[in-house]
Amino acid sequence: MKSERIILGIDPGTQVMGYGLIADKGKKIELIGLDVFRFTYKDSQPLRLKMIFESVLKLIDQHHPDELAIEAPFFGKNVQSMLKLGRAQGVAMAAGLYRDIPIFEYSPRKIKQSITGNGNASKEQVAGMLGNLLKMGEVPTLMDATDAVAVAVCHYFQREPESQGKSYKGWKGFVDQNPGKILGK
Amino acid sequence: MKSERIILGIDPGTQVMGYGLIADKGKKIELIGLDVFRFTYKDSQPLRLKMIFESVLKLIDQHHPDELAIEAPFFGKNVQSMLKLGRAQGVAMAAGLYRDIPIFEYSPRKIKQSITGNGNASKEQVAGMLGNLLKMGEVPTLMDATDAVAVAVCHYFQREPESQGKSYKGWKGFVDQNPGKILGK
Repeated sequence: MKSERIILGIDPGTQVMGYGLIADKGKKIELIGLDVFRFTYKDSQPLRLKMIFESVLKLIDQHHPDELAIEAPFFGKNVQSMLKLGRAQGVAMAAGLYRDIPIFEYSPRKIKQSITGNGNASKEQVAGMLGNLLKMGEVPTLMDATDAVAVAVCHYFQREPESQGKSYKGWKGFVDQNPGKILGK
Repeated sequence: MKSERIILGIDPGTQVMGYGLIADKGKKIELIGLDVFRFTYKDSQPLRLKMIFESVLKLIDQHHPDELAIEAPFFGKNVQSMLKLGRAQGVAMAAGLYRDIPIFEYSPRKIKQSITGNGNASKEQVAGMLGNLLKMGEVPTLMDATDAVAVAVCHYFQREPESQGKSYKGWKGFVDQNPGKILGK
């Protein structure tokens, strides 16, 4: 039995996907790793979606996170960009759903609020606070990966995620009570 | 070797998901099956997404479709509804991407145009034409399932899908040329 809880933070986007892995060791947290996958204009949308799905699945299978935290903006420029963003979020979530890992989503504002105390904090302020919290030394320059670490840390800070975040934990209990509603069970 | 091509049509939505399976036997098509999964207000969004993902995966594993056709509206009421719709589409696509099945998407207008010759045809007109094409006898009353059959039949009608539909076939060739871009390969 591992005594630590591993949280995988994902910032799925249509241009880039960031991820951050942290270990919750009770009174302290440690950074396991962070990185970004960048997509170029040459990558078709389906290729991007496949890269997101396979990347998240691989991260899950390599690091066995206990929980998945996703940065999920609820507002966008237009319906087109939101459809694309929804697809990116959907495939990232599918990887977690497929591996039965509880998913939690947080808005950018909630993440900034949790980490800096200010929902309107700048990216630099969030990165600076993360640098202190995780003793990362210098602030990482991969801002999109930092966003993913931030959502993982935001989730760590939620003591009662059911009431504070938008929890995706509930479905399992529902499924147990409604086995007929789920195929493949 | 099977001589027929099986097309799985999916109409993923946030309230209901329809599917239709058809067999392309060269000069004629046959309906294999159709159905809908309805979600109630009690089903949380993550549960719905999980149901969509698992339903599509199960359909793929049971029927081994050669191609997946998705009805994909590109316009919606607002960014909120498009984000939800994008997520529903994303998890349905993830199932196809996971099983390496080429995905094709068609707009509702394109589907109506392909089947009735009129991009503004009513649902009843589309269902009536499908009844004739597939010799289904009476028109099915499951309109959402009919939409899914319609997108499958629309895909059947595309002789050169690369040029006429929005093809998701291209990624495989891309991946072969760019193995380093895909994790898990």
